[in-house]
Order: sequence, then C-alpha cells, then structure tokens
Amino acid sequence: MSLVDKMQPATGSPAFEATASALRARVKSQLPASLMLPATLLTGIPAPLNVTTIPGSCGLLTPAELAITALDATALCEKMAARELSAVEVVSAFGKRAAIAHQVTACLTDFFLDEGIARAKELDEYLEREGKVIGPLHGLPISIKDHIPIKGHWGSGGFLSNTEISKDDCDMTRILRELGAVFYVKTNQPQTIMHLESQSCYGRTLNPHNTDLTPGGSSGGEAALIAMKGSPMGIGTDGGGSIRAPCAHCGLYGIRPTCKTMPMDGYLNSQDGADGVLPSTGPMCSSARDMRLLLSAILSARPASLDPSLYPVRLILPDLRSGFGRKLRVGLMMHDGVVFPHPPMLRALMLAKEKLATSDAVELMDYVPYEHDQGYSIARELYYEDGGKTLRRMLADGEENILPLSEWVISPPYVKDHDATAIWELHARRERFRRAYSDHWRSQGCDVVLCPPFPGVAARHDTSTYWGYTAIWNLVDYPGVVFPTGLTAEPSIDIAMEDSVVSISDADAYNRSLYEPTAFAGAPVSLQVIARRFEDGLVLAAQELIESILKG
Amino acid sequence: MSLVDKMQPATGSPAFEATASALRARVKSQLPASLMLPATLLTGIPAPLNVTTIPGSCGLLTPAELAITALDATALCEKMAARELSAVEVVSAFGKRAAIAHQVTACLTDFFLDEGIARAKELDEYLEREGKVIGPLHGLPISIKDHIPIKGHWGSGGFLSNTEISKDDCDMTRILRELGAVFYVKTNQPQTIMHLESQSCYGRTLNPHNTDLTPGGSSGGEAALIAMKGSPMGIGTDGGGSIRAPCAHCGLYGIRPTCKTMPMDGYLNSQDGADGVLPSTGPMCSSARDMRLLLSAILSARPASLDPSLYPVRLILPDLRSGFGRKLRVGLMMHDGVVFPHPPMLRALMLAKEKLATSDAVELMDYVPYEHDQGYSIARELYYEDGGKTLRRMLADGEENILPLSEWVISPPYVKDHDATAIWELHARRERFRRAYSDHWRSQGCDVVLCPPFPGVAARHDTSTYWGYTAIWNLVDYPGVVFPTGLTAEPSIDIAMEDSVVSISDADAYNRSLYEPTAFAGAPVSLQVIARRFEDGLVLAAQELIESILKG
Repeated sequence: MSLVDKMQPATGSPAFEATASALRARVKSQLPASLMLPATLLTGIPAPLNVTTIPGSCGLLTPAELAITALDATALCEKMAARELSAVEVVSAFGKRAAIAHQVTACLTDFFLDEGIARAKELDEYLEREGKVIGPLHGLPISIKDHIPIKGHWGSGGFLSNTEISKDDCDMTRILRELGAVFYVKTNQPQTIMHLESQSCYGRTLNPHNTDLTPGGSSGGEAALIAMKGSPMGIGTDGGGSIRAPCAHCGLYGIRPTCKTMPMDGYLNSQDGADGVLPSTGPMCSSARDMRLLLSAILSARPASLDPSLYPVRLILPDLRSGFGRKLRVGLMMHDGVVFPHPPMLRALMLAKEKLATSDAVELMDYVPYEHDQGYSIARELYYEDGGKTLRRMLADGEENILPLSEWVISPPYVKDHDATAIWELHARRERFRRAYSDHWRSQGCDVVLCPPFPGVAARHDTSTYWGYTAIWNLVDYPGVVFPTGLTAEPSIDIAMEDSVVSISDADAYNRSLYEPTAFAGAPVSLQVIARRFEDGLVLAAQELIESILKG
Repeated sequence: MSLVDKMQPATGSPAFEATASALRARVKSQLPASLMLPATLLTGIPAPLNVTTIPGSCGLLTPAELAITALDATALCEKMAARELSAVEVVSAFGKRAAIAHQVTACLTDFFLDEGIARAKELDEYLEREGKVIGPLHGLPISIKDHIPIKGHWGSGGFLSNTEISKDDCDMTRILRELGAVFYVKTNQPQTIMHLESQSCYGRTLNPHNTDLTPGGSSGGEAALIAMKGSPMGIGTDGGGSIRAPCAHCGLYGIRPTCKTMPMDGYLNSQDGADGVLPSTGPMCSSARDMRLLLSAILSARPASLDPSLYPVRLILPDLRSGFGRKLRVGLMMHDGVVFPHPPMLRALMLAKEKLATSDAVELMDYVPYEHDQGYSIARELYYEDGGKTLRRMLADGEENILPLSEWVISPPYVKDHDATAIWELHARRERFRRAYSDHWRSQGCDVVLCPPFPGVAARHDTSTYWGYTAIWNLVDYPGVVFPTGLTAEPSIDIAMEDSVVSISDADAYNRSLYEPTAFAGAPVSLQVIARRFEDGLVLAAQELIESILKG
C-alpha cells in the first residue's frame, strides 16, 4: 500500500464526496508548488514506514531551516526575543516543513503560511520598534487542532456537516495571538473527534514513525505534524485521551490539564451542553519545558476573568528535589486490571521500576488501580448520553458514512439513550465513583502515579478501542502528562506474548490478539504521570523528575 | 388564627398523617417538660405577631442564659476559649431557648440537647486537660438544616418518603464536629426544599418578627431559630435563595458561597445527580464577622482534599479601606427589570443610595441588570429537568399531598420533561447566559452589586413565587451576602403602591397585588451584596464596608 492509499479519507454519498474532495483539494492547493514531494514517494509501493527523516533528506529545506525546526518552543522564543532569529524566519521554516509533513502524513486541514508570515513581520517590526517582545510567545508558530476556531479559517466539530469557516477567534486563539503566537496551519482530527485515530474527510493521518500505525487521536494531526517537526507547539483537546494518546504514540510531550482551568469557550463540537465528561485543552510539544511555557503564558492572561466557567488558577511547580519536605511518592501501576500492556510497554515499565527503585530522589510504591473497568464503562456511557442519536444525525446531515470506530463509540451496552432521570442517575454514579476513587488514592499514600498511557505503543489503524488508560483520568479529572521514554518498540526484544496466559477481560483478549512483534517496529514507548485534581504543577514537576531518573 | 393554627403541617393520606403526626410528636416529646409555654399563648386568638420577645419574657430562661444567647458566635468562641463561659453553659442556654423558639415558630425537626451537653462536657474537659481549644469552633452550638445528615438523627430530602435517621455524618457535619462544634437541633425546611417558605410534615415555620409572614425558605427553620436566638450559628443551603431569602426575611446575616467551595457531599435530596443549577451551603448567623468565622474554619480543614468535586480555595478578604488601590465600585441595582420592589425595600435602597453617594469610601454607580427574566426562566427550567416527575413520585411514595408552592415550582411553561439532547441544549443555553452575564458585568465596571434580596420584606405565607432577586445569582454562581439594614417595614411610612403604575411583567403585577402597608409591620428590611464568581472574600469585605456606611 502506498502512502496515499494509507491516507484514505472518510467516505459518503456522491454529494459528500464532491464536498470532501474539494476540501482536500483546497488544502493541497494551499501548499506551495515548490514544496511538492515526488509522486513516486507518495504513490510508490511499499510505502516508507518511517517518514520522519524525509524533511531532512528531501532537499527542500535549507540547513538553516532544518536547524530552526530542530529547536523546541522555549529555545525559539528565547532566540527570537534575543533577535538571534526573526519571527519571519521561524514561521517560514516551520511552514515549509509542515507542507512536507502533510504530504506524507495527511496531518493538515488548513494551511495559511502567508498570513503567518505577515503576522510574523508585524511582530519583528514591533520588537524592532519597541525593543521588547509583545508577549511570552512572541513569534512562536503554533499549530491548532481543527475544531479550535481561528478567525477566517476552516474548522469543524468532527463532521463534514459542521465544517465551516470560523467567523471569529475563540478565547484560546485570541489569547494566544495576544501573547505573540503566529498561526499558519490547522490540523486533522477524526470523524466525531472521539477516536484514538485521526481519519476524517480530509484523510487518515499517519504516524510518522511507522505509517502502518495511527498517530493516535483525536489530536492526531497535531501529533504527526509536531513529530515531523512541522510545528514546535500545538494545541489539542482531551476528553478521553485525545492529547495524551497522540503524544504517546508519536514520542511527544503533552498534558491534559485539570478541566476548566484553560480557556476553551467557542471550540466547535456536536454535543454542545453535554457535560458528563468535560474535555480539557492543552499543549502538545517536543520538550517538557515547553508544556510549562505554554500553560504559564496562557494562565498569565487570566482566562478566568474572561470565561466565568473557569477556575482561576496559577501554575506553581513544587521543587521536588529540595523544597518538598520529603521524597516524592511515586505509585507505579504496571497495568489497570483490565487490559495487560504489550511487551514494549512492559519493558518500559520494568525499566522505570528498576531506575526508580534505586533512586534516592523518590520513594517508589505499587499503585493498585481502583475499578478501572467500572470507570471506563461510566465514561463511555457519559460520552453519548443520547445513545448516539446526535452523532448519527450529524453524519446524515452530511451524507457521511459512519467509520468503524464511530460505530464503536456509540455501541451498546454502555451507550444508550437517557431521559432526564437516567442522566441524573448516571451523573450521581459518576460523582460516587469520583469520591470512591479519591478515597482510594488517598489510602494508597502516593503523590503521583506512573502508568502506561495506552496498553501498548501506537496501534494499527482502526484497532484503538481501549482508552481505559487515559479515559479513567478524564472521568475523575486528574491532570496527566505523557512523555517519551526514549525507548522504541523492537521486534527482536519485544517478542510475542505468551499464548498460555488467560485473558483478564474481553478487552484484554482483543488487545493480546493485536500484538505481533514486527508490526510496531520503531514506535516510541511513552509513559504517563498522573496527579490529583488541580495538582497540575505537581504533575509537571513530577514528570520532569521521573524522566531525569529514567534517563539518568 | 392561633400560633398553632398558623403552623399547619403538610397533609396527606391517613397513612401519611399517622407517620407525620408521630414525627411531630417525637419532636414535641424531645423538648423538656419544664420548658413548655402556656397553652393560652400557643392556642390563643389572636396569635401574637412578634414572638422574638417571648424567650425574654416567658420566665423560663435565667438572666445568665439570656445574656449568653444574646452573644454572637465569635464572642461565644472567644469567651469559651478564655474559659469565661463553659461549653456546657453555652449549649444549655441555646438549647433551652431553641425549645421555646420551636413552640412559637415550628422551627425544629429534631432536638437532642442531652447529646449536645455530653459533647460540650467532653470539650470542657479537653480544654481543662490540654490547655487549648480543640478547634476554632470549640464549644459553638450549631443548628443544622434538616437535609444535612448528622449521625443518629432525623433528616429528610424534602419529603416524608425520604425522612430517615442518618447512619453517618456527612462531610460538613464531620468537619464541624472536628472543629469543635456542638450539635443539638435540626431545623425545618419545606416540602421539596424548593420554596421560599418552610412548610413540611413537621409544620409550617413562622417568622418570629411577624407570625403572619414566612421566615422564608428553604432554610426557614434555621432563620426562625436564629432570629429567636435559639442558635448562634446555622448551616443552610441555597440553590435559588434558600440561605439569603430566610436571612433577609428574619434580619440575619447569610452568605451563599461560590458553588463547590464548601463541603456538601452526603446532603439528602431527591434529585441526586441533577446538576443544572448546583446548590451551595453556608452560614446563617447574627453578625457579619460570624460568616467569616464559619467559612474560615471550614476552609482551614481543607475540604477539597476530602471531596474531589470541590475547588480548593482560601478565604482572603481584601482591605477595602486602604489596600485596594482605589475606591470600591458599588453598582446599585434598584430593581431587576422584572419585578418592582415593595415600598419598604425601596426605602432601604433610597437610603443606601443617599449614604453611599456621599461616602468617600466607595464609588457609587448604577448597575443595569442583564436579562434577569430570561435568567430566571432558565433557572426554573434547570431545577426540574424531568418536568417534576421525581417530585410527584416522592410525594406519591409517602402519600403526601402536594403543597401549592410545590405545584408552582414544577408548573409549565418553564418546567417540562427533557430528553438527553434537550438537557444538552438547556445546559448550553445556561453556559451562553453565564458568559453573556459575565461580559455584561465587566462592561458595567463595578466590583460588587448592591440590590434587593427579594422584591419586598418577608412575604405572606404561600405567596413567594418570584425568586429572581436571588436565583439569578445561583444561575451565574456569583457569591452573595444578605444583611439587615436596621430598618423594618412601617405601615405609616411604607404606604400603598400607586395603582396607576403599569406593571412591567405578570410577576410584577402579582407582587404589586401582594402589597398592603399593614401586612408587613415589623418585618426587617435586608439588602444583598453580590460579587463575581470566586470573589467570596471580596463580597464579605464589601458587605461590611457598605453596612458601615449605611449605618454610619
């Protein structure tokens, strides 16, 4: 199968196909003709598996552009503030690389580099004139997930039928703009925005480390783009793992902040007012410090003064080395009692256990999960309180065929239509679960939990049905960070799972059936750190400490 | 009509009557025989209007007991900590006075002074032994609204059918106990807990200042009891005005804190999981400083570490005289554009306007309300998303007749049954309203709003259908404090409303029809101060400043 074949879009009626192909043609036409990759690369068989090297090898980027796009957001901001780089240089380099990334991963839904360059020019002039940056993100190119509106650009709530040009910025993009961010692309997400996969009418986004695998979802366009270094910073959303799974699958850093701390008023979706499990929004990037950069910058703009639904919080990172009064207590959760991880993930967990157990900087303990199967069932029921009626209506309105993973998210027995009293009962069940989970966590005595973000590395396309490792934390609203361990799946080490082991659940049996050592070659192995609700500063500090021990 | 006639309870089938009369007889039997008031007082016609003087004149309390019960909670705590008063003396005095209060106002649903005295004895011994208080509320008698569980005592979710003996304390009562509080009574609330009136199977609670009037609801038992000085501090709840209306009607201080800052997990109700408009819980008391005492004490126990649904906050009071950087901007809202206040309330507003306009300490401005009629409609629709089905079922389960105000709260057109998508649409409408309200408030430029808590003083029984002056702030979740202006309704000054004025709404026409100068004689006139969400410290500080100006 060629790259183009792998990127197959969602399908529908002839009317759907006409509109959808026009949307794809529009993106293609937005890319500069000078940046087109050879057709042989895109349609040749077999397709390359690892495409992360293509921007460096294709000859379309200058050494200076390659050097710029190798920097993280923090370094870029520092160099622009110091006038070592101009904003125009920076967005031009990332824009070019994004155009290349899109051709091999189908990661974009809108490309408007001219506008980015124009804004960068204004910022360069501002810095020249005023002698200071306009804000902490001065000149930083930021890629934006499709359903987050940018004035004058395409966006959608997960269906062709709600694809539109946004009339206004939302709070998030308005704030980012004021902080100095430069917009130039929007990125792909799946039909429904509720898959750990990213296939829409714009195409199916591929994992740059292994194009047979998904980059995850729903912020999969972001993850593929950032892993291709076509963006130094992306804004994603996470209602069940949609920041963490793609970052984990693509070897990136990402945080799902506690809900209602970051601005997301105005984001497009199809179930406005559904509040069973709230989504959150946050950064996806290539270094731990970049997560802090973005969160600090946004919170410094006091979004709660604008959006009355937000909690006014500040980001305070405890000093875990000396200022914490005692060692950080890290609870290690090897598995969630529902689905046993694949060998590459287990290898990373075993390595972490060994490193943390012998570190003087933390106290390692086992973390026993609390009823994650029940939690995942409650979350699934909450996602579609109408039994999926609205989802089907949105598809019908656009004459769009339902994708297998969309069918899956609204499948019984968890998902069913609820009347008012059934919704109250469900929300009461959620509240009891949250309280029980909190009591359980306190009884365990750990500060943070280290665990898999997914029962394996990036999945093969259309197989991601178990989100329990991320969605459980959405349900209880605990902030979570994922980070790359530096390990990748290696067929020679990560051999087949034992057939003789009895599966612990149907989901476990399915997950076991998916494992095949050669299938995941080269996929990054990532881990997840969780802290309790509102402990976003702690989870960031703990992730950094844990990573330093793992990689020390 | 005699006092006993005025206290008529909710009614029902013979089975209901048997159970309800047993509940009332239980309370009566709990009162010490030595504290019984003469039958002539209770059954004589006409009933006294103002019964606040009865504890002082009945001869059942000693001068020492009268002196103790004249103190506010802060003074009591200080005197107990200094060992000038013992906890046993204090709860004994309030307990006796509560027994008297109940006979003339039907304010109690449970009376257990023996248990209170036993706990007070332990606390006295603790102080003697340890040389320090057990907590900031050491020895303070606190009365508790019926639906807030205390282990081993009666409570209900607003219906006979969910009346029960609580197996455990809830978070709030557990925390209060640990802080040193002494429990001895529980207090009456209305059928459904959703009236600004307090009539249940235990009887109808009367306003001690004028027994023809309601003490308000739903925390009306608390308000009557505290106004009778049968308790120095009560815990109420407020989902539409249920702390503020009763405090306003009875001349007390009360705050509805921002939702999800105070512990209320475990409170009894009949719509568990309904989260369209969240209730809040807070103190009802006889001084402004007592509100701070109670909130500070509870927040010092870090309830958010126990209840994961809570937002961790601290109570920080700005210094508005010198540390605010500029004058406090007070927006005065004379009316809400829906219902015009009665003459006594207008008189208080005019006085406030005059005093504030000439004060150097604040900047007075007009506050223009934003669509309060729309907000009240949304709130009413949110209160009963099932169209009242559950309410009717709870009544049917106990064979309890529906009260007129219960019928009213579930009446169309606002209230109707919703399916899942209708609930989402309603919640989305709520979120848009909240955002629009916030934008509007910011455009007005004031820090706090001073406004009526109700379109008049305490209402005559069964007439309180317009909660717009309080419920609007529940809808947008802005903290609000009510306080007594020191004025009371005076028939000679507060003359009839002009007939020629055209009503501005049906609710206004009804409210006008209720006014009659003589009907409200002696009722306290109270005002309400509102600040934005999470500005609980500001609203407390502002109320104190405003009161000092009004009374200066």
